[in-house]
Amino acid sequence: CLVLQLQTVTLIPGDGIGPEISSAVMKIFEAAKAPIQWEERNVTAIKGPGGRWMIPPDAKESMDKSKIGLKGPLKTPIAAGHPSMNLLLRKTFDLYANVRPCVSIEGYKTPYTDVNLVTIRENTEGEYSGIEHVIVDGVVQSIKLITENASRRIAEYAFEYARNNQRASVTAVHKANIMRMSDGLFLRKCREVAENFKDIKFTEMYLDTVCLNMVQDPTQFDVLVMPNLYGDILSDLCAGLIGGLGVTPSGNIGANGVAIFESVHGTAPDIAGLDLANPTALLLSAVMMLRHMGLHGYGKKIETACFDTIRDKKVLTKDLGGNSKCSEFTAEICRRVQDLD
Amino acid sequence: CLVLQLQTVTLIPGDGIGPEISSAVMKIFEAAKAPIQWEERNVTAIKGPGGRWMIPPDAKESMDKSKIGLKGPLKTPIAAGHPSMNLLLRKTFDLYANVRPCVSIEGYKTPYTDVNLVTIRENTEGEYSGIEHVIVDGVVQSIKLITENASRRIAEYAFEYARNNQRASVTAVHKANIMRMSDGLFLRKCREVAENFKDIKFTEMYLDTVCLNMVQDPTQFDVLVMPNLYGDILSDLCAGLIGGLGVTPSGNIGANGVAIFESVHGTAPDIAGLDLANPTALLLSAVMMLRHMGLHGYGKKIETACFDTIRDKKVLTKDLGGNSKCSEFTAEICRRVQDLD
Ligand SMILES: CC(C)[C@H](C(=O)O)[C@@H](O)C(=O)O
Ligand SMILES: CC(C)[C@H](C(=O)O)[C@@H](O)C(=O)O
Repeated sequence: CLVLQLQTVTLIPGDGIGPEISSAVMKIFEAAKAPIQWEERNVTAIKGPGGRWMIPPDAKESMDKSKIGLKGPLKTPIAAGHPSMNLLLRKTFDLYANVRPCVSIEGYKTPYTDVNLVTIRENTEGEYSGIEHVIVDGVVQSIKLITENASRRIAEYAFEYARNNQRASVTAVHKANIMRMSDGLFLRKCREVAENFKDIKFTEMYLDTVCLNMVQDPTQFDVLVMPNLYGDILSDLCAGLIGGLGVTPSGNIGANGVAIFESVHGTAPDIAGLDLANPTALLLSAVMMLRHMGLHGYGKKIETACFDTIRDKKVLTKDLGGNSKCSEFTAEICRRVQDLD
Repeated sequence: CLVLQLQTVTLIPGDGIGPEISSAVMKIFEAAKAPIQWEERNVTAIKGPGGRWMIPPDAKESMDKSKIGLKGPLKTPIAAGHPSMNLLLRKTFDLYANVRPCVSIEGYKTPYTDVNLVTIRENTEGEYSGIEHVIVDGVVQSIKLITENASRRIAEYAFEYARNNQRASVTAVHKANIMRMSDGLFLRKCREVAENFKDIKFTEMYLDTVCLNMVQDPTQFDVLVMPNLYGDILSDLCAGLIGGLGVTPSGNIGANGVAIFESVHGTAPDIAGLDLANPTALLLSAVMMLRHMGLHGYGKKIETACFDTIRDKKVLTKDLGGNSKCSEFTAEICRRVQDLD
């Protein structure tokens, strides 16, 4: 009798449809016998000593121990001064790389086929520095901060990712023709790192040109690496090409194996609790997580069951063009997962 | 015998294919008997007193007199410190609004139909301030500058444009969830101006959400107004939806009627002089120019002849899917223009 070592994952179910899609993912993981033990935590920010916003200590401790999180959607805080939870999590755990694979899903029709690219976004600085000032009345400046270290780190991550995932090329996305010093520094670091990865083709392209080419022929792109804001934009654009945030996984990666995987769609309060939500984005994020943990077999099995269910078109949630409930879609994936054994 | 008052336009043919497509436009204008007199000028920057880059005095004088320019593509300067000619022109004449209508062209197939939107980009500040510093070694900041005046001015332009062009709505595009002060100021001005245009629907949307929605269904958008960089990105993205920069017109609008209309594609040095270039983008920019000058009838006639030629598919340049030379395509449009009389 083989005793499988269970690995702990911090589960942040989130708000709105978050709990439903989280429980769907747990059911599918159970059906797949994935060796994961969930530790559920709430991350809603609290005011810590000195009035600083922080995530609750028991959530922080769980993540510090498990190193791996899976997170549903969180509602945008309305209180003035309350931070974006997404930004707070990225900051708390120094999750410096945001990774979003965009792959066309067979059976889910969009104007594009054969999209197969990954956006890798610097997740800690740039336009997201949070440094802003009023210079004089009616004149405001926001500071975009680019550092050598963060630029090198994200470039290295992108090239390592390309190599580890059998991808042929990395494109650095920039506006160094306009922001010569900041984007210039980012670009220079990408070029330097590229020197150490002669097996990966390196190209550079202006952000505007990438957007234009992307909507004309996304199949020309492979791995793309870029500063924070450009990644925010491009990752959503690319998600749109393959069907939207309901089917797009995302991972936020830090140092020493720390990572949080998340669905990036909203909390959909209008359908929360009605068993109508589509768990695909969170499930595919959980598949990314399994691969990150080295559990490739389980990842493949679950991914296959999910894609087969979508391709088959018989049991689909409403947003995917079907009439099934979240629970029925989940059950169908569970059935297929078990069949794959 | 009616004596028609000729209006002078400063023509900047530009580099590469610029002279060919400029002469195509002049031929078509002649066929349409458009009451325009061209004053040809070269704008390649020179170093003025104090070492400042400036456009040559005779080009500046011509523009100051005519107020209206039509410009082909300019090659990107390679000399270090040499400014982007596009930026220098925008600055010299304070062309604060960049206007790019994106309208699906019948007969020119892309994955999208019925696109009919206009991006209106703040053209003077934002991320294009040119203010950058090295803080300490390896740490660079670029300053995004947003002012109340420029924000109000572009918002007013967008709403006036919507009203004058029978458009129903204006969407302000922003990331005020991240850049709360700078994009916040921009957004506030848009909201204020919206109050004075109750006949136009006003909405606000995050830039990332716009990108996602844009590639999923561009027909939901009408007039979009945004800070400089966002406009750079979105206008290229939208051009991609309808067929690229070869068919997309652009206008840079300043105060007191001053304006420069331009094709925003490159100089295509590989086909320069070979009679293969497609003059459509410059021609449609010239049509925008005619409308700006109040010459609507001539604008309509030339636009119709151009679109009819494309829809008919018999005489098209290579990039439009045909086999004809630039001169043949031009002659076909001239023939149709004369038939419309
Ligand atoms: C919610 C928001 C703060 C966030 C961002 O702008 O980064 C989101 O758009 C994302 O892409 O994760
Ligand atoms: C050439 C470049 C400076 C310019 C810009 O970034 O504004 C171009 O992309 C544009 O959109 O006109």
